[in-house]
Amino acid sequence: MNVDVRDEGRSGAPVAVPSTALFTDQYELTMLQAALRAGTAHRRSVFEVFTRRLPEGRRYGVVAGTGRVLDAVENFRFEPDLLEYLDERGVVDRPTLDWLADYRFTGEVHGYPEGEVYFPGSPILQVQGSFAECVLLETVILSILNHDSAVAAAASRMAVAAIGRPLIEMGARRTHELAAVAAARAAYVGGFSSTSDLAAGYRWGIPTVGTSAHAFTLLHDSERDAFTAQVASLGTGTTLLVDTYDVAEAVRTAVSVAGPELGAVRIDSGDLLVVAHRVRQQLDELGARSARIVVTSDLDEYAISSLAAAPVDAYGVGTQLVTGSGHPTCSMVYKLVARATDDDPRSPLVPVAKKSLGGKLSVGGVKWAARAKDEYGVAAEEIIGTGPVPDELTDSLLSVELMRDGRVLVRESLDAARHRHERARSGLPLSATQLSRGEPVLPTRYRTEAPVTA
Amino acid sequence: MNVDVRDEGRSGAPVAVPSTALFTDQYELTMLQAALRAGTAHRRSVFEVFTRRLPEGRRYGVVAGTGRVLDAVENFRFEPDLLEYLDERGVVDRPTLDWLADYRFTGEVHGYPEGEVYFPGSPILQVQGSFAECVLLETVILSILNHDSAVAAAASRMAVAAIGRPLIEMGARRTHELAAVAAARAAYVGGFSSTSDLAAGYRWGIPTVGTSAHAFTLLHDSERDAFTAQVASLGTGTTLLVDTYDVAEAVRTAVSVAGPELGAVRIDSGDLLVVAHRVRQQLDELGARSARIVVTSDLDEYAISSLAAAPVDAYGVGTQLVTGSGHPTCSMVYKLVARATDDDPRSPLVPVAKKSLGGKLSVGGVKWAARAKDEYGVAAEEIIGTGPVPDELTDSLLSVELMRDGRVLVRESLDAARHRHERARSGLPLSATQLSRGEPVLPTRYRTEAPVTA
Repeated sequence: MNVDVRDEGRSGAPVAVPSTALFTDQYELTMLQAALRAGTAHRRSVFEVFTRRLPEGRRYGVVAGTGRVLDAVENFRFEPDLLEYLDERGVVDRPTLDWLADYRFTGEVHGYPEGEVYFPGSPILQVQGSFAECVLLETVILSILNHDSAVAAAASRMAVAAIGRPLIEMGARRTHELAAVAAARAAYVGGFSSTSDLAAGYRWGIPTVGTSAHAFTLLHDSERDAFTAQVASLGTGTTLLVDTYDVAEAVRTAVSVAGPELGAVRIDSGDLLVVAHRVRQQLDELGARSARIVVTSDLDEYAISSLAAAPVDAYGVGTQLVTGSGHPTCSMVYKLVARATDDDPRSPLVPVAKKSLGGKLSVGGVKWAARAKDEYGVAAEEIIGTGPVPDELTDSLLSVELMRDGRVLVRESLDAARHRHERARSGLPLSATQLSRGEPVLPTRYRTEAPVTA
Repeated sequence: MNVDVRDEGRSGAPVAVPSTALFTDQYELTMLQAALRAGTAHRRSVFEVFTRRLPEGRRYGVVAGTGRVLDAVENFRFEPDLLEYLDERGVVDRPTLDWLADYRFTGEVHGYPEGEVYFPGSPILQVQGSFAECVLLETVILSILNHDSAVAAAASRMAVAAIGRPLIEMGARRTHELAAVAAARAAYVGGFSSTSDLAAGYRWGIPTVGTSAHAFTLLHDSERDAFTAQVASLGTGTTLLVDTYDVAEAVRTAVSVAGPELGAVRIDSGDLLVVAHRVRQQLDELGARSARIVVTSDLDEYAISSLAAAPVDAYGVGTQLVTGSGHPTCSMVYKLVARATDDDPRSPLVPVAKKSLGGKLSVGGVKWAARAKDEYGVAAEEIIGTGPVPDELTDSLLSVELMRDGRVLVRESLDAARHRHERARSGLPLSATQLSRGEPVLPTRYRTEAPVTA
């Protein structure tokens, strides 16, 4: 996973895998076989990742997973045991296996940088190379972008709702164990500040935090014993869980055990608005004015927002974050939009598109995208075009070059993506941050050479 | 991953990971540290996995992931580089690191066997050992069971709706790349017959299949060229995608290219009910009576059911399967239900339970579970109790011993789990297979020694 070029996190166990080549739908390989035989496999091609719509009611999408995509493309190779498996099962024929054995992606990738916002039609990623080398990447690219962007979009809404208070990602137990690691990463891009997931800390360098569970209190003969044990080992700055039995009594015990320097208390049940106010008052009366209140318990962006006026210092969010707050996947697709008519690498690309059925929007041709601003510097529309870029838009282009000749050009820290997202979101019209359902906050306008069919 | 004891699939790349120990929330380790120091870490303890409710409207749950859980527990160990990471970040102190270095789970695991159905309160998994060794396993056990059971539940409903027609899992591109592998596995347990995901075939031995994408047609200069290339390479038994341009013309071209032996056509858009009827009629008129019709395009159990009377031979299902058809996670929890009062391994266990807040059901004590039948042999209720098992229920107990002294006792094939699920589902009242929303099809009845608090 090329750790040496990263300055954060670690590669290796338990998250890295030796090859990403098997994260692939079988038809990518059988199409390759048929194209190799037909002599069409080496036609220069451009595939684009885009989404036809945002999840219902959402105002903007968030690009996340780009860094993981670049890793996946770079590590996409067919090791001998994988080839043996494909051979044994008769998935593809010998010439195809031979071709796969030498597979390295040698093409170009452009795309919206990680953390950028997107809208229906935005060309989020563009992959250019021979049909053969590009078609194979479809499944793994979509897996990563669809999952990570869904989590980042939920995280971004929660970050808006949290009005600057820290958000802790705690959803590992609610999703696949490795999806959890990617979810923590995407949440960080979207605005979360830490995670409970040690694998995410290990792999991506995200700050990790932890409190305590009800089991710890129940293990001990009394709540006081449990708090005493925790403070003795973890110090007075620890976070004590105060809702195993009676909250008021627990808060009293907590301050009596830890003293007024008590770090924080966590509330995991009940009417959080009411309980937070009572606990704050009680902590203040007991002299623990600097003790913070952390709330958890099935929070989503709406619950977080409803606690804006409550004396809450941090939110721990699990289920609703890692499941995209109602939208666990994006509907990104990977479509061939242009290809050459023969093998000659100098042959011009011709736009191609599926005929639309059932209202699916398909626009052929390689796209550029720009975000035009209004007179106040606020984003006004997402302009997507083919052909030459109009002069007035050259400064507003959104895509950057990510890979050239199969080599990753841009490796950036998660903080860079996180800051980019914050900037991009703050450049949108104010209504972007309304949690209520609505239309995408920017309209998509096409400036294509050929008419757009819808 | 102990491949040698499996007779299906393969271990190793890209799905196995060297250790599952970091798929853990930080607080498991800090609780361990505090308990080690307090001298309470070695109290014999029992944790139970259960869910307080089924997803809204669902009639039954499906246990899936048990086999993965056993692998995860067996591989849960702290390699030197993980310990170094924990040390560097100051997550836990030196005595805790030393204890973790020797960690092996040495306890017992009982549970519902994989594929079994479950209801609110069912003790799906029971983990017994010292508090220290059991508490660490919480996160990874819940990750696996919550994810895999959510997918299996959706798969089971789709299998019911498909009335025996084959279901193909095609969701890899809609979920995290490794969640996809687990999803294909869970779908197979729930009743799917194959997957498009090569990693799932490689790791779990699930049959893989593939058709073709619109990109393949668009790559070629005409649809006829594309079909000719596909048939030349993959034979007349292949599945041709017929909705890139005009369906009727594509079907005509398909039969003209492949002849009446054409294997299948795939329809991926439009009104599938109408289109399937038209395509069937056309295929029959063209003499391709044995050509099958595969439909895809955002199917869920309702869409599948609505096609029951249509001439459809197989369904390809993606998004809605891997996202649990509206319920991407279960709400399983891992709770301490009993523990000894001191370190002596002979000390009796005392039941413990959090005081209920906000209506959360908490029942202390180690549970047994039985499924009572009515006079016709149909399941009538899920009986959950503590203390001695009543004589009349000893033949209806649901849990089996899965691990003893840290060793896995039961390793079974996915087919065994798949068949178990089919049997368990067919033993439920008929209303279990109604797709409409309703209450759990079996009521949960408690026979506990202490009163149940709700």
